[in-house]
Amino acid sequence: MRMYDLILKKKHGGVLSTEEINYMIQGFTDGSIPDYQMSAMTMAICFSGMDERETVDLTLAMRDSGDVLDLSGIKGIKVDKHSTGGVGDKTTLALTPIIASLGVPVAKMSGRGLGHTGGTIDKLECFPGFSTEISEDTFVNNVNKIGIAIAGQTANLAPADKKLYALRDVTGTVDQMSLIAGSIMSKKLASGSDAIVLDVKTGNGAFMKKIEDSKALAKAMVSIGNMAGKRTAAVITDMDQPLGYAVGNSLEVIEAIHTLQGNGPKDFTEVVFALGSLMLQLAGKAADDAAAKSLMQSVIDNGKALDKLAEFVAAQGGDASYVYDTEKFPKASCAIEVRATEDGYVRRILAEQIGTACMMLGGGREKKDSPIDLSVGILLHKKNSDPVVSGDVLAMIYANDAKKAEAAKEAVLRAYEIGREAVSPEPVVKEIIL
Amino acid sequence: MRMYDLILKKKHGGVLSTEEINYMIQGFTDGSIPDYQMSAMTMAICFSGMDERETVDLTLAMRDSGDVLDLSGIKGIKVDKHSTGGVGDKTTLALTPIIASLGVPVAKMSGRGLGHTGGTIDKLECFPGFSTEISEDTFVNNVNKIGIAIAGQTANLAPADKKLYALRDVTGTVDQMSLIAGSIMSKKLASGSDAIVLDVKTGNGAFMKKIEDSKALAKAMVSIGNMAGKRTAAVITDMDQPLGYAVGNSLEVIEAIHTLQGNGPKDFTEVVFALGSLMLQLAGKAADDAAAKSLMQSVIDNGKALDKLAEFVAAQGGDASYVYDTEKFPKASCAIEVRATEDGYVRRILAEQIGTACMMLGGGREKKDSPIDLSVGILLHKKNSDPVVSGDVLAMIYANDAKKAEAAKEAVLRAYEIGREAVSPEPVVKEIIL
Repeated sequence: MRMYDLILKKKHGGVLSTEEINYMIQGFTDGSIPDYQMSAMTMAICFSGMDERETVDLTLAMRDSGDVLDLSGIKGIKVDKHSTGGVGDKTTLALTPIIASLGVPVAKMSGRGLGHTGGTIDKLECFPGFSTEISEDTFVNNVNKIGIAIAGQTANLAPADKKLYALRDVTGTVDQMSLIAGSIMSKKLASGSDAIVLDVKTGNGAFMKKIEDSKALAKAMVSIGNMAGKRTAAVITDMDQPLGYAVGNSLEVIEAIHTLQGNGPKDFTEVVFALGSLMLQLAGKAADDAAAKSLMQSVIDNGKALDKLAEFVAAQGGDASYVYDTEKFPKASCAIEVRATEDGYVRRILAEQIGTACMMLGGGREKKDSPIDLSVGILLHKKNSDPVVSGDVLAMIYANDAKKAEAAKEAVLRAYEIGREAVSPEPVVKEIIL
Repeated sequence: MRMYDLILKKKHGGVLSTEEINYMIQGFTDGSIPDYQMSAMTMAICFSGMDERETVDLTLAMRDSGDVLDLSGIKGIKVDKHSTGGVGDKTTLALTPIIASLGVPVAKMSGRGLGHTGGTIDKLECFPGFSTEISEDTFVNNVNKIGIAIAGQTANLAPADKKLYALRDVTGTVDQMSLIAGSIMSKKLASGSDAIVLDVKTGNGAFMKKIEDSKALAKAMVSIGNMAGKRTAAVITDMDQPLGYAVGNSLEVIEAIHTLQGNGPKDFTEVVFALGSLMLQLAGKAADDAAAKSLMQSVIDNGKALDKLAEFVAAQGGDASYVYDTEKFPKASCAIEVRATEDGYVRRILAEQIGTACMMLGGGREKKDSPIDLSVGILLHKKNSDPVVSGDVLAMIYANDAKKAEAAKEAVLRAYEIGREAVSPEPVVKEIIL
């Protein structure tokens, strides 16, 4: 078998066999197939596409390129959750304690962020002492004992995907449905859960801007998961504005805590409930959506979900007192207002621009080893469809550098699109794909 | 400017500007643009194409990536000739002495062959002592004195093309019209001639199998040449069987000598005349095709063309006595017959398979540094449309190894397609593109 022939086949619109896809991914991973052949192949795939079987084969080949975790030492049906990424997405922080407090084991690998804000690990590190560098034993024991553990991704999961993504990133071949679905699902399938719930974002701040593309991606991933033997479901959620009000690491942690106290933003709470409902149903803890949501509401109302967060933080070395006193989180030294310059209604908030503003403040990483400032960020006061009067505070900037604050203020103001006409609010949960 | 953006632009069907193409070719040549980005780009070009302006810009950028020869020290209008390559193509050997003897200076760079037979240099080396390793001074002086010199390609001509071709060759992106035209023309434009005549082959043994593709390539190259300020013309010629009867280095030299004596194969003679006619017209030596061909016939009839070959061979250190006594060329040790196994008419002769048979005998190179046996080869006795009776000799194999001879015999027999119905012969010169 020669990679050259596989490139030609795909270029001419052919369908690659399982053996051919395995050969390609193995060879690319071990370096016997060079980058320049793989990039020609990915470009040919962008034009010729891959069918469902090819996409599943690609995903499985990438999954099998590295470790596949064995979580059989953890009792119960383990349900993983994955978001395609958006601005203000602190879902894991609120969702996992709720689910864990309802008896569904949460055994999660997470990453640090590159981009607008930190990732889940960075956000958890807002609790002083918290560490995700725990041994495999501690990880398994914690899940069995308190129902939840989150570890940094130390295992060698889907190295083929890592290498392929890096190549696609510099050759203009990121936006192909099968390649995106395969990339996400290869890692999810390698991380040992029994079922998978996907949060596929749609809108100006999402990777997929159009609802049809988001649906197609969700369907592709659900199909891959099910064909690989894991029950999989997806929720399409809105990213035509940041999720919730808070964008920035400790600001988002505080918002997640408020949500666990029953005082979260409406849109964010809805997303948490939609995802949690599917997780509980896939884990066999609830028969339907209504039952699942009622269970979730109960652990918020009786404080068990909040206590689970505290227990989880403490178990990984963090100061759990912050969970009950959010005033303890370090504050940025300056707070400046972003005020509306016209009357009208918020038509949309360019989420990516809000994210970029947060990064400008130091709240996100431009490079892998950039330091990150956990205290800075943006708190939105107005969201889509809200009426505004000139002079109203649209958002607050929290910064440790006055110059950066001014630059971020400009960016946030530009991110707000104000129109004359009233607009009706869009639902944040667009569709469930089973 | 970033290569990443250019790849995306072409992927989405955009047109690259002159500046963008220059940036891309310069960066690829100096190594600042890596192979994996360039191969993604060439694959995108295969799908999205390049327009006429882009193709010309690409060609000029590749021409300018290395030396551009200055042949102004040579008097007269210098016309270069290029063939897209075929089996049994010994055109340069017969054509250039004819043209030179009619006062058109021949100052040619040539290469060694990789593939079925050697290249022009290998064939010229059949004359003992002949060398193409001559100094620039000798080269220019010889052309000015006797009208003809052929040198090995020592200058750094179009290195961008060399690098790009090597990459296309391993990434399945060879067969794109603009890339092919740009590759050929960048070298031709760099080699300093005033006008260019192209021999574009078509048929089973050619790079372009279909006449429409051959025409499109010819038109693209003629357009590039003219837009770059060189008068350019092309001839589409048949490669649905080998050209002439001889395939193999010294066998082809002998056939070229016979042609200069007026006894060449009909198809080969026609190709030489068609190309020579255009060269004479572009050089201003003949007003029209009839006048040009009559001049060519005259130097064959009066022996001047043959004498010019001898003069040329001697000037570059070769033994010119071989020109007048072809029995002197070394002969292969064994000759075996390939006989027809059925009655009928030759429908076609798979030229590539004949070429491969010659390579199996040792007459061509598989790798750059393979040795080459100048004495071996194949002499066809039957050509397209010829009637055959079972037992007739279709071809002779000349070999220095009995085992290789048997293998070549099988290959040659398979290359002949014999049909029941009589077929009318196809013209060898299909079309002239001006």
